Amino acid sequence: MSFINITFKPGARQREFGIVKRLLENSGYKLMPVGKGRDSLVFKTSVPPVSGLKEKIATQPGVKKAQYIPTSYLLASKNYKPESSTININNSNIGNGKITVFAGPCAVESRQQVLETAIAVKELGVTVLRGGIFKPRTSPYNFQGLGKKGLEYLLEAKEHTGLDLVVEVMQLNEIAPVAEVADLLQVGSRNMQNYPLLKALGQQEKPVLLKRGMGCSLNDLLMSAEYILSGGNSGVILCERGIKTFSDFSRNTFDINAIPALKLLSHLPVIGDPSHGTGVRELVGPVGLAALAAGADGIMVEVHPNPEKAKSDGHQSLTVKEFQQLMLQVQNISAALNRPRNCVAINSPAVAQHLIEEKIDKDGELSIH
Amino acid sequence: MSFINITFKPGARQREFGIVKRLLENSGYKLMPVGKGRDSLVFKTSVPPVSGLKEKIATQPGVKKAQYIPTSYLLASKNYKPESSTININNSNIGNGKITVFAGPCAVESRQQVLETAIAVKELGVTVLRGGIFKPRTSPYNFQGLGKKGLEYLLEAKEHTGLDLVVEVMQLNEIAPVAEVADLLQVGSRNMQNYPLLKALGQQEKPVLLKRGMGCSLNDLLMSAEYILSGGNSGVILCERGIKTFSDFSRNTFDINAIPALKLLSHLPVIGDPSHGTGVRELVGPVGLAALAAGADGIMVEVHPNPEKAKSDGHQSLTVKEFQQLMLQVQNISAALNRPRNCVAINSPAVAQHLIEEKIDKDGELSIH
Amino acid sequence: MSFINITFKPGARQREFGIVKRLLENSGYKLMPVGKGRDSLVFKTSVPPVSGLKEKIATQPGVKKAQYIPTSYLLASKNYKPESSTININNSNIGNGKITVFAGPCAVESRQQVLETAIAVKELGVTVLRGGIFKPRTSPYNFQGLGKKGLEYLLEAKEHTGLDLVVEVMQLNEIAPVAEVADLLQVGSRNMQNYPLLKALGQQEKPVLLKRGMGCSLNDLLMSAEYILSGGNSGVILCERGIKTFSDFSRNTFDINAIPALKLLSHLPVIGDPSHGTGVRELVGPVGLAALAAGADGIMVEVHPNPEKAKSDGHQSLTVKEFQQLMLQVQNISAALNRPRNCVAINSPAVAQHLIEEKIDKDGELSIH
Amino acid sequence: MSFINITFKPGARQREFGIVKRLLENSGYKLMPVGKGRDSLVFKTSVPPVSGLKEKIATQPGVKKAQYIPTSYLLASKNYKPESSTININNSNIGNGKITVFAGPCAVESRQQVLETAIAVKELGVTVLRGGIFKPRTSPYNFQGLGKKGLEYLLEAKEHTGLDLVVEVMQLNEIAPVAEVADLLQVGSRNMQNYPLLKALGQQEKPVLLKRGMGCSLNDLLMSAEYILSGGNSGVILCERGIKTFSDFSRNTFDINAIPALKLLSHLPVIGDPSHGTGVRELVGPVGLAALAAGADGIMVEVHPNPEKAKSDGHQSLTVKEFQQLMLQVQNISAALNRPRNCVAINSPAVAQHLIEEKIDKDGELSIH
Repeated sequence: MSFINITFKPGARQREFGIVKRLLENSGYKLMPVGKGRDSLVFKTSVPPVSGLKEKIATQPGVKKAQYIPTSYLLASKNYKPESSTININNSNIGNGKITVFAGPCAVESRQQVLETAIAVKELGVTVLRGGIFKPRTSPYNFQGLGKKGLEYLLEAKEHTGLDLVVEVMQLNEIAPVAEVADLLQVGSRNMQNYPLLKALGQQEKPVLLKRGMGCSLNDLLMSAEYILSGGNSGVILCERGIKTFSDFSRNTFDINAIPALKLLSHLPVIGDPSHGTGVRELVGPVGLAALAAGADGIMVEVHPNPEKAKSDGHQSLTVKEFQQLMLQVQNISAALNRPRNCVAINSPAVAQHLIEEKIDKDGELSIH
Repeated sequence: MSFINITFKPGARQREFGIVKRLLENSGYKLMPVGKGRDSLVFKTSVPPVSGLKEKIATQPGVKKAQYIPTSYLLASKNYKPESSTININNSNIGNGKITVFAGPCAVESRQQVLETAIAVKELGVTVLRGGIFKPRTSPYNFQGLGKKGLEYLLEAKEHTGLDLVVEVMQLNEIAPVAEVADLLQVGSRNMQNYPLLKALGQQEKPVLLKRGMGCSLNDLLMSAEYILSGGNSGVILCERGIKTFSDFSRNTFDINAIPALKLLSHLPVIGDPSHGTGVRELVGPVGLAALAAGADGIMVEVHPNPEKAKSDGHQSLTVKEFQQLMLQVQNISAALNRPRNCVAINSPAVAQHLIEEKIDKDGELSIH
Repeated sequence: MSFINITFKPGARQREFGIVKRLLENSGYKLMPVGKGRDSLVFKTSVPPVSGLKEKIATQPGVKKAQYIPTSYLLASKNYKPESSTININNSNIGNGKITVFAGPCAVESRQQVLETAIAVKELGVTVLRGGIFKPRTSPYNFQGLGKKGLEYLLEAKEHTGLDLVVEVMQLNEIAPVAEVADLLQVGSRNMQNYPLLKALGQQEKPVLLKRGMGCSLNDLLMSAEYILSGGNSGVILCERGIKTFSDFSRNTFDINAIPALKLLSHLPVIGDPSHGTGVRELVGPVGLAALAAGADGIMVEVHPNPEKAKSDGHQSLTVKEFQQLMLQVQNISAALNRPRNCVAINSPAVAQHLIEEKIDKDGELSIH
Repeated sequence: MSFINITFKPGARQREFGIVKRLLENSGYKLMPVGKGRDSLVFKTSVPPVSGLKEKIATQPGVKKAQYIPTSYLLASKNYKPESSTININNSNIGNGKITVFAGPCAVESRQQVLETAIAVKELGVTVLRGGIFKPRTSPYNFQGLGKKGLEYLLEAKEHTGLDLVVEVMQLNEIAPVAEVADLLQVGSRNMQNYPLLKALGQQEKPVLLKRGMGCSLNDLLMSAEYILSGGNSGVILCERGIKTFSDFSRNTFDINAIPALKLLSHLPVIGDPSHGTGVRELVGPVGLAALAAGADGIMVEVHPNPEKAKSDGHQSLTVKEFQQLMLQVQNISAALNRPRNCVAINSPAVAQHLIEEKIDKDGELSIH
């Protein structure tokens, strides 16, 4: 599938719309409800327009621009919207090259754990806290998340630290309660093609962080974004988190090529998740920095005050100290690449080091005061 | 994760259960609610039991068998249940080497289309009709299925032909209406790890056809089956339908190794879907026969009276004539492999040819009388 | 890259060749040395010919047929040569649907081992003996093959049984000695893109069994065949032997789709190697039968008189008894599919059973008399 | 396979070697010729040593250290040699975190082209020139390289600029002439498992740049390195260059996880090739920077004075101007990461800009003066 997108000049009237509409429908194109606003008409096609047609339409009265969009996604494409999109939540303007760091535990496990982690990552410059309460676990016998109790703890952590919140939703009836508390609704990789969920999120006002499925192409990802965008929700952030390949050692293969490729194909913000993208603690930092160097608008990192005791993903969670090291490098690399960032707290490595040392006791644990 | 499964002799009493329970809990094992019935106890572990423990338990009063199950799935494993399972629906006993053919259109498009197809495939020996009414389409701009209207047509086709029905469900609120009409509830590959959906199907009485996700391992598939089984629904059929690989020409790569591998690992019936597994009409027949030769308990094939006009998957749907050729080969190959089959109608190729020729007019289309 | 292939009528003269040559060169096409024989001219192009050009050429004096070949391989393509090719060696006409079974040990280990295996597989209907003497092993510390000593043993086995021989070559200086003894020269998957080796084999008279690389597409495989064909050696047999994917349990994923796909794209014989394609003994038989059901012209199976003591690939080698079971099923399935076969010995399962029992002692081992 | 490595104290005598040798041989271990030097003995094993054995050996007279190496590669492993290796050629000490940039055309096409490119990349801080003369091309009908004529041009470029040279070899008889001119011998990804070639390079003095095969695991790569190392050549540089996956848009998927993973597993230098790893010009720079951010010891980049006219890989070659932009970012990022580099020429972006502008005329081409 591909599209013909006609933009009209301000003040174009019904009659001028009608002329173009008839012209294209007579050529076999089908008018699409999507994107049909005050000033544009979109038509669906399965082949490139015949030579001369685009030019002919462009010269019709009232027409500002006639454009052929060769991809099977429309609203997500850079052809349709060449300027980079920015998703604005409380503390972060996500996208357009500005670096945002999302961090927190894989799953909310207790009030203490989420508060400790929130305070620590806030101190280190993070602006968005992550934390799962409904967990998509491969085994039915594993911890499935704290559910709504977890949401209370996240709300408390948010109020205490002022951090923004991103929380995963897995089914329709979770959207409303999560949307009351969270600033970003996350779609996990296992649900990237759960179309009823995507359609429901298209009706939401809160922006959506959409993680790429482990067996999904970039085209699949952008088509899933299109489900949300075409429902009316223009706030979509794409997230690369590793794909399934034959490669050994790491659980998944972080598709670094996807970062600049998605930036070429789409105007949407793109972030990387090196925790799931590697599944190995020692690789998280290097691959997180790599994602930023490749142009990602941010990274999402699993941090846990005590990874060995984590109820999920302990093997890929950073300790607070390890995360601190990473944040110092994020700061250096963002400066080297001349990239602004949403990391508010760290003004200099030395200051950060000092702030952190005060909060972390000699056993490397961070406690609530 | 792995398990220790203790089966007790008939008449074992509470006290005998208690002795074993304490013995294992003192050794650090955790009692699992799953599988805990009148005659068995299951414990969770993360390492193989220490030398001698199994033997010690086996000699406790009342104990019939103590078994270590090394896989992360329990109820789905062949270790837990060595005999092949059979799922019995009206016309088909699916599993244990008996060959079942599932056929029908990708999507229900009209009353005429579904009736025509149902009559044709019934004539050719099929016992289960497939037909999608809620369609998981990659693009929001493509045909999304007829919804409940489609269900009416399927019901009519079922009543007219006596065929069993398999229908896909994508979200919780579709389960009840579909379960009223369908004999098998299908989980599509994009929802293989939609755990809320799997949990809800675990509460159902109707059996479930679970398709492997395109980026999912055999272990992932068996864990998803475990979600359904552990909810109390013992009727699960596994379906290989192609995975994402670098290989060119076909849209997916049908993982033929998965067929005998799943038969080794699990007692559940295993079928193959060569239509999605190849995505190319010319490959459907050869790969369908290959699946059966590799030991599949059945195949699911997309058939359309007029593939060029199909609203979805036309490129991989067989015409009725092509499907007839395939069914004759299915018959021959099942005889050669000494395998029983649920294909009821075709007694001999010559008779089948005759029956079909009467129903198919000279343009190769089959009409309702 | 793609091609324009012009075939001339018998008796076409130099002048008629010249007219077509100028016509195409003036249109920007480049004459290729390949395939340029008495009656044809081939031109290289990067785009489909402009409308009307093919027709114009077809009407030139002396021209029999003008053909556009859209693939990047020419001589290997079914467009170029629509009839299936058959490779004739002593006991086998390989290709065109006739079933050939290649069997023998992974590596030649001793005189006794190769003779025993040769006699056993001959008895069971095999016509081509396999056996490696230069072994491409992942580790430098593993058994690297017996080299030329192994060739002597193979020659003895060939003379004793009358079987044809297929032997792998890894480098240029191995070709001549191996070609003196072997009937088919094998290129292993790790050397599928060893172009100097392919070029040298293009100069050989002995046909070549070309195994697909584990990370190579069908297009890559056909291009490697083209290296051999364009050197003048028209005897190429393609072999699918499993690709690298994320799928678990089996070492490789046998790409069953490749079998019918290669048959669509090329006239060359296609066989399957389920031993390497699965890497797991229990899967070899089912996947071997699947390959034949999907249309393969043969299968190659590793057989060892005592797999546990094998110096390589023991885990994927069949015992003689297991191989006998497979051969009986091969016979049944080839009859069911109405396919001729090169399996000469087994007339009926009962006779085969009898012949074999005489030769295999009660411990399941087969000895030389 | 795994290993037991015994290191002896200086001055240990034959008798002390003998005691340990007998002790291990009696326990079923097999002495390996590899690594057997004046001060160490290596034994092959297939299972971890029994409890207490390591300690027992460590207390034998003369023994300095007894070590179990659990990987199937020995000399390549970080267990065997914990300190990072550095490969010293004329202008570059490659490895141990120091950044080296390798650049030049895919293939040497003419004297003019290679000289122009050499001068340009030298100016921009490169220390190693790449350029293929024997080209492994997928199609036999494509440009196969200039062969020895190309070697003359490379020698002239080397003498003119003082750059080091890396040149690919595909077969045994190319090694000697290439080794006379090149400072590093490259094994291409298609030959990563060409074991006769690896064995021959193990006998060479010149170090080897070993590119990962497109379908090969990290373990496969390290085993291929072991072939070279065990032959006596300790100079091996590993190169990640993209693997085959289902992911779309880019030709290959650059396995960014491989960079830090190889650094964990091995002491050998690791570089990235973003040109082949993406196959798309727009992705080369971002993925090259990502490789460095992930810890690579260098990157290899295809640069061509006029990519549209390149005889191979034009679509993934950078122009000199594009490469200049990349080099400025390489400089910034290496400073940010506090990494030394072999880039000798660029002292500051401003100076580099100036130097380059003088040499590049207004059409963006760089000519020889």
